[in-house]
Amino acid sequence: MTVNLPLPQKAELKPVKGFQMGIAEAGIKKANRKDLLVMTLAPGSQVAGVFTLNRFCAAPVQVCREHLAQEGRNGEIRALVVNTGNANAGTGESGMKHALETCAALAKDLKINPEQILPFSTGVILEPLPIEKIITALPKAVANLGEDNWFDAAEAIMTTDTQPKATSVTVETPAGVVTITGICKGAGMIHPNMATMLGFIATDAGFAPGLLGNLTREVADLSFNAITIDGDTSTNDSFIIMATGQSAVQIQSSNDPSYAILKDALISLARKLAQMIVRDGEGATKFMTIEVVGGKTPEECRLVAKAVAHSPLVKTAFFASDPNLGRILAAIGYAGISDLDVNRVQMWLGDVWVAKDGGRNPDYQEADGQRVMQAPEITVKIDLGRGTATQTMWTCDLSHDYVSINADYRS
Amino acid sequence: MTVNLPLPQKAELKPVKGFQMGIAEAGIKKANRKDLLVMTLAPGSQVAGVFTLNRFCAAPVQVCREHLAQEGRNGEIRALVVNTGNANAGTGESGMKHALETCAALAKDLKINPEQILPFSTGVILEPLPIEKIITALPKAVANLGEDNWFDAAEAIMTTDTQPKATSVTVETPAGVVTITGICKGAGMIHPNMATMLGFIATDAGFAPGLLGNLTREVADLSFNAITIDGDTSTNDSFIIMATGQSAVQIQSSNDPSYAILKDALISLARKLAQMIVRDGEGATKFMTIEVVGGKTPEECRLVAKAVAHSPLVKTAFFASDPNLGRILAAIGYAGISDLDVNRVQMWLGDVWVAKDGGRNPDYQEADGQRVMQAPEITVKIDLGRGTATQTMWTCDLSHDYVSINADYRS
Repeated sequence: MTVNLPLPQKAELKPVKGFQMGIAEAGIKKANRKDLLVMTLAPGSQVAGVFTLNRFCAAPVQVCREHLAQEGRNGEIRALVVNTGNANAGTGESGMKHALETCAALAKDLKINPEQILPFSTGVILEPLPIEKIITALPKAVANLGEDNWFDAAEAIMTTDTQPKATSVTVETPAGVVTITGICKGAGMIHPNMATMLGFIATDAGFAPGLLGNLTREVADLSFNAITIDGDTSTNDSFIIMATGQSAVQIQSSNDPSYAILKDALISLARKLAQMIVRDGEGATKFMTIEVVGGKTPEECRLVAKAVAHSPLVKTAFFASDPNLGRILAAIGYAGISDLDVNRVQMWLGDVWVAKDGGRNPDYQEADGQRVMQAPEITVKIDLGRGTATQTMWTCDLSHDYVSINADYRS
Repeated sequence: MTVNLPLPQKAELKPVKGFQMGIAEAGIKKANRKDLLVMTLAPGSQVAGVFTLNRFCAAPVQVCREHLAQEGRNGEIRALVVNTGNANAGTGESGMKHALETCAALAKDLKINPEQILPFSTGVILEPLPIEKIITALPKAVANLGEDNWFDAAEAIMTTDTQPKATSVTVETPAGVVTITGICKGAGMIHPNMATMLGFIATDAGFAPGLLGNLTREVADLSFNAITIDGDTSTNDSFIIMATGQSAVQIQSSNDPSYAILKDALISLARKLAQMIVRDGEGATKFMTIEVVGGKTPEECRLVAKAVAHSPLVKTAFFASDPNLGRILAAIGYAGISDLDVNRVQMWLGDVWVAKDGGRNPDYQEADGQRVMQAPEITVKIDLGRGTATQTMWTCDLSHDYVSINADYRS
């Protein structure tokens, strides 16, 4: 079950000049399934990434970090390789060896250095990566590299997703038109023993060295770091922005007028992708936006949004379409703002003002709250009344199906 | 459904000299239901409490804090009053007025100062306390005060609990025999809009002024603060230890040899009570002990225990009796120890060594893990391999019934 998540249309996914994708069926976990994706970048491209903070991070995540740190010494990043069916996590030294062997094999095919490749894995953890299957299939993926393969690429990185997730946009800037296209996967951190969030965005804009790193972190914080299904952070989460520089738009500094336009477009596209993960959240029947305003700092707003978005009590109440104010107020109260004056807190469910000055709004009618709760998309707005900072998070409800999906998978 | 939670036997609940309980049916939410409890303490008693940190704390919690702070100026605490059916939370100024009126009415009946009374409420929030019903019923509760009413008292504080929770012990110390009896309530933070954890322990030991405060915090941290059902902290959570000093055992300082014995006994009894709440956790089918050892500090051990105990993925896996190692390792990884060396992490499911040096134990057989997971009580032991600190938490699984109970309550 998904919440307002239409299938992406192939024709809408615009090619990004200088960026190619090739797909293969390696038979990693199941036969006859796209499970290997190779992506290549034209010379001169910039690449930046944000990775899981989980200390049990997977071998490919460690290799990605090292290769991005070595960029320059060993040449710029020119290719990415993603396998599904196996996360290569909790696999120790042999896992690291397999990740490096994957890079080495693809480097040979592409005639570049292994250090110019970023590897990604997602799927079962604690099982050895079937490296031979991957090495055998890599040439097939390389053989069908093309700029028009976005839809197939989105399919190739799916694990527990019920459908591929991709979107595309063109943006006009003073310096010319830029294309941005992205894909992602994820539906909760699940499955034996978890799935993973992966996000890849490519653009034909060019960025001077050093610019893309900060930009990627900013974009991640306002998109993929602002969603939660069940609060669990996987061992493999990765988000990558790639800029081929094949358009007329070349950004030299963050003061460039086109920079702000591109940043807004990247945030908007990344949010759309991130929200697709929530819309496909395990067992999701409701899409919830938690908007916190009036904080002293964005960080404290994030604490409150997270407490509300993570609360099993709030999430089950939304599943039941029950405007259960007390559960939301309680979550605000334990979010961790030790000097919060609750008498200044206001709350709205959609357009209905439900909590006024820390208590029930005297004008609030239960029927109004219930009307809002019937919708598949609901915004909870919380005003902390102590500043001007804001933060928004997106999440889904907690349903019977979430328990079924996660309890029954291996049985 | 409960996990190994037998009904307490009246005969086993020992009276504590100097401590009396009286029960009444005030009809606060439903008729013909014990919903009002008055407790009185002999002169010279010591009382200490630990309260919710939720910023949306209820009016009675604020009054308790004030009256405990005023102790001495206005006389020692001599009585407690608990109502169920209404939490008197999110009720603003009128809520505070009602809590104080409750104390005033009881003070008149008992001929003490209102500041010598601690009020407690649990039940629906955001609804005005029906103060007239409480004031009318108070004399009835006072009329049947007695030392033998522990079972009825445990019943009188129930809300969503499926059964009363109480236990009792006698302890021999060098100075003589001490009786400790306690009751508690709670089954998850739920219901329209939440329930609450309340715990009351009485002993006939005597403590010099000032000793009981620290002791109560230590006991709470190792018992009620070490359990979680769904991670939600209510607006009304309170834990109180009362010492009447009516036995021969009079503790003058924490160096007294009897102090350590009593402390151990109080921790043990409070843990038993706290675990009863987990065993009665909403939808619980499994009782889980999360034991973290080998940490640098108790605090970091608590972070890890909490991450594992709160993870919906871990909890659904236990519901499914699925020895899903990856989910537990992932929770350890994101618990917040930024310099954790995962290669030193060991994990056991019951007596089975499942994760060795951060990866799957080569000798681990899935069948062994599955055998352990079939039991209704399961211990997960995690060795962080970086120190000697330890912390243990208790929790239950996340089942279909949890979603049903919390989603369907108001429909």
